[in-house]
Amino acid sequence: MNPSSLTLLIDLYELTMAYGYWKLGMIDRQAVFTLFFRNPPFQGNFAIVAGLQSAIDFIKNFKFDPSDIHYLQALQTHNGAPLFEKKFINYLQNFTFACDVDGVEEGTLIFPYEPLIRVQGPIIQAQLLESALLNIINFQTLIATKASRICMAAEGDEVIEFGLRRAQGVDGAFSGTRAAFIGGCHATSNVLAGKHFGIPVQGTHAHSWVMAFENEKEAFTAYARVMPNHCTFVLDTYDTMQGIKKAIEIAKNQKGLKMMGVRIDSGDLAHLSIHIRKLLDNAGYRDTQIIASNELDEMIIHNLKNQGAKIDVWGVGTALITGKGQAALDGVYKLSAIQDANNRWRYKLKTSEQFMKTTNPGILQVRRFFDTQGMATCDMIYDIEMKHAKHVDLINSIDPSKKKQVQSNANHKDLLVPIFRSGKQVYEPPTLLKIQTYAQLQLNRFFTSTHHFLNPQPYFIGLEKTLYDLKMLLIQSIRSIER
Amino acid sequence: MNPSSLTLLIDLYELTMAYGYWKLGMIDRQAVFTLFFRNPPFQGNFAIVAGLQSAIDFIKNFKFDPSDIHYLQALQTHNGAPLFEKKFINYLQNFTFACDVDGVEEGTLIFPYEPLIRVQGPIIQAQLLESALLNIINFQTLIATKASRICMAAEGDEVIEFGLRRAQGVDGAFSGTRAAFIGGCHATSNVLAGKHFGIPVQGTHAHSWVMAFENEKEAFTAYARVMPNHCTFVLDTYDTMQGIKKAIEIAKNQKGLKMMGVRIDSGDLAHLSIHIRKLLDNAGYRDTQIIASNELDEMIIHNLKNQGAKIDVWGVGTALITGKGQAALDGVYKLSAIQDANNRWRYKLKTSEQFMKTTNPGILQVRRFFDTQGMATCDMIYDIEMKHAKHVDLINSIDPSKKKQVQSNANHKDLLVPIFRSGKQVYEPPTLLKIQTYAQLQLNRFFTSTHHFLNPQPYFIGLEKTLYDLKMLLIQSIRSIER
Repeated sequence: MNPSSLTLLIDLYELTMAYGYWKLGMIDRQAVFTLFFRNPPFQGNFAIVAGLQSAIDFIKNFKFDPSDIHYLQALQTHNGAPLFEKKFINYLQNFTFACDVDGVEEGTLIFPYEPLIRVQGPIIQAQLLESALLNIINFQTLIATKASRICMAAEGDEVIEFGLRRAQGVDGAFSGTRAAFIGGCHATSNVLAGKHFGIPVQGTHAHSWVMAFENEKEAFTAYARVMPNHCTFVLDTYDTMQGIKKAIEIAKNQKGLKMMGVRIDSGDLAHLSIHIRKLLDNAGYRDTQIIASNELDEMIIHNLKNQGAKIDVWGVGTALITGKGQAALDGVYKLSAIQDANNRWRYKLKTSEQFMKTTNPGILQVRRFFDTQGMATCDMIYDIEMKHAKHVDLINSIDPSKKKQVQSNANHKDLLVPIFRSGKQVYEPPTLLKIQTYAQLQLNRFFTSTHHFLNPQPYFIGLEKTLYDLKMLLIQSIRSIER
Repeated sequence: MNPSSLTLLIDLYELTMAYGYWKLGMIDRQAVFTLFFRNPPFQGNFAIVAGLQSAIDFIKNFKFDPSDIHYLQALQTHNGAPLFEKKFINYLQNFTFACDVDGVEEGTLIFPYEPLIRVQGPIIQAQLLESALLNIINFQTLIATKASRICMAAEGDEVIEFGLRRAQGVDGAFSGTRAAFIGGCHATSNVLAGKHFGIPVQGTHAHSWVMAFENEKEAFTAYARVMPNHCTFVLDTYDTMQGIKKAIEIAKNQKGLKMMGVRIDSGDLAHLSIHIRKLLDNAGYRDTQIIASNELDEMIIHNLKNQGAKIDVWGVGTALITGKGQAALDGVYKLSAIQDANNRWRYKLKTSEQFMKTTNPGILQVRRFFDTQGMATCDMIYDIEMKHAKHVDLINSIDPSKKKQVQSNANHKDLLVPIFRSGKQVYEPPTLLKIQTYAQLQLNRFFTSTHHFLNPQPYFIGLEKTLYDLKMLLIQSIRSIER
């Protein structure tokens, strides 16, 4: 559950390929891999980048330890021969990470096909990072995106991440909570994530507290005694509407009690919250918050809001921490360029029967253009060797009939920034709180219509035309060669 | 991503409740918590228990380390006061785990409402384990169940777990692979899981290998040279049907090459595999396996089989490692009994508007009855204080109109076994391979109709009648008291 070294977070084929490159003397062959996804999660438009800091931590510790080496030495082919030669294992043990890594900063909005991470360096090293980078970025980006959708549905209300018990494993809860905070959650119930990431923790009592006493009144009285400054009652252990009456009665009887909130965890949350709000207001508890939980997601929250629910704080568990509706971002890590034996770049793509699945070749960057008000107008995927003309033509990646022209001197920002250079970290990651703020600021630079969680308007993402033309040429060339 | 101590894998409310019990002098109050789920995953009938070994590891290391203590001391209420008194923190720092834990062995089939883990001990300690146990058991049980469904669909063919890149975080891949092996997978691509759990690892090359060379023929030739005894070609980098022709050509040209397999990762897998099988057979490569991957799950595999696909090995990624269709098992951890101040057991339940959500009271055990052929006939949930009569009446937990009578001397097995006694581990977990075998043997003791992954027949699970009657009595009593 908690291995000391994570370096073997590798799919075996990356090691067999590394072995192949090593045997063929291609150790120093420079290659470029591009990480991107094809489908925006949750039938929305965009994703919120998350996981870069975790990826940096992984790369910084990317070193095979003695137990890793021991294990690799013992691997065998089907006929009992060692899978890898000893000299190759020695190479793995001794290599120094030397890649350049560029990445899109956490909290940035990102769209399909846009390079999210670019790794350039010796092919063996760049290849070995594939699965770990995908695992980390796919998951955290998925959850940050889900959180951002849920927070949008909550329209500024506080959202607390409650998913520890239903997360997919320990790290599903741990790094998932980190990503949920980037996406806009205000707090978490997960103490481990609170400790490590500095995320505010919140929590009250469970049904079990009420059940541990003779009856609900005794349980509430006891809780009020031990938590006089910080008291939130859970109302639905037996019957929510009876629960709220007892909560008010006890609050009235205990002088100085600060009844911060009441929580409802079952039933018709709209109906119950409206009724409870009235009772609380009538009793003078206008500041007591109503916290709701129970299988919430962005659609249910949106619905409850439409029904006039009087809910102040949303506790969201399973749907948030597992990305309900889409269990994985479909990120891939594809070779897009490699140097030949004469150190000349050869741009590469993978073809497919489906045009959408054909990859983009080159050493890619993505540029976001803004209007004079600072609102995002479109994104351009381009090769870093692109010649800068005054007007730039863009062709939509999925539907080539859609085109756009931009002025190259319009406000813009290149999204990939240097993270490692020749294996040394050159990027200083911001604090998690800064990333959360940055994500919100980025969202505000898009028109609401493009990031709404229901039926959003398309946002234009195009390939720069010379890149598009090169891609077409490469496809034709492959089709003629590979027959 | 990899914190040194996992003890704070706790929802904050467990700590605030613990604080409450401590303040009220209830440190030594004995309580019983029961872990169970309500809905069988994936609209099937059953789940395969997994995660017990990981839960044992967690409990054995359940100790607040200095950094945990430091963090807890610094927590504050909204008005800046310390959330917890120093003496309570001292208590946490010094407590010795003293609970009894009973659990259902990994690989066992388990059904809704059946106690899967039972923790009995001082209420603070038993309560603090809630979220970690749920996190570990919910996830691994979900994935073992998914794997078992996929392996059933594969009808004995080899199934390889390929999900690392799409898993929900590092542990989603790590402990998920462990669970997938329990459910019946034969191997994994995940080297970290292979190393730690002794699961066979498999892998070949990626599309990137083919793209790294001038053309596919050169790439295959190079791979055959470096992996002559262990050669599997990936065919669909550019065009699958061209790929297979080149693979055969190269295998023919290179003397002594062992072409273990070919892999197809896109397109119509039934059509392609039938065609490829013919070409391989005609060329004399009858032993070369066809490996298929690409968003597979049990339904797609079942479908491909029905279409006559000639696939020998199934590589299953996202759908397996994330439990496609249901991202979380809905396991809960409920107080079911507590001693009063006079050390008398008081049985407890949580009521709900929905009868299905009302919990079972008592110190619960589950007994599986078998016929004379050793096939499972029904399960009984009962209280361990139950008086043993000759005939036992069972009442279905969800539909009380369904009843059954069993002979108490019929063949049976109690599923919960002692894991910890007074905090000391008394259970020696089997090896992972033994668990996998055990799971298969257990499946074989159920009629296929009850564990089929499509529209299974119901299997009878009942509450022992005196327990059922007690439950009804308690519900009535709560309804009258809590008005």
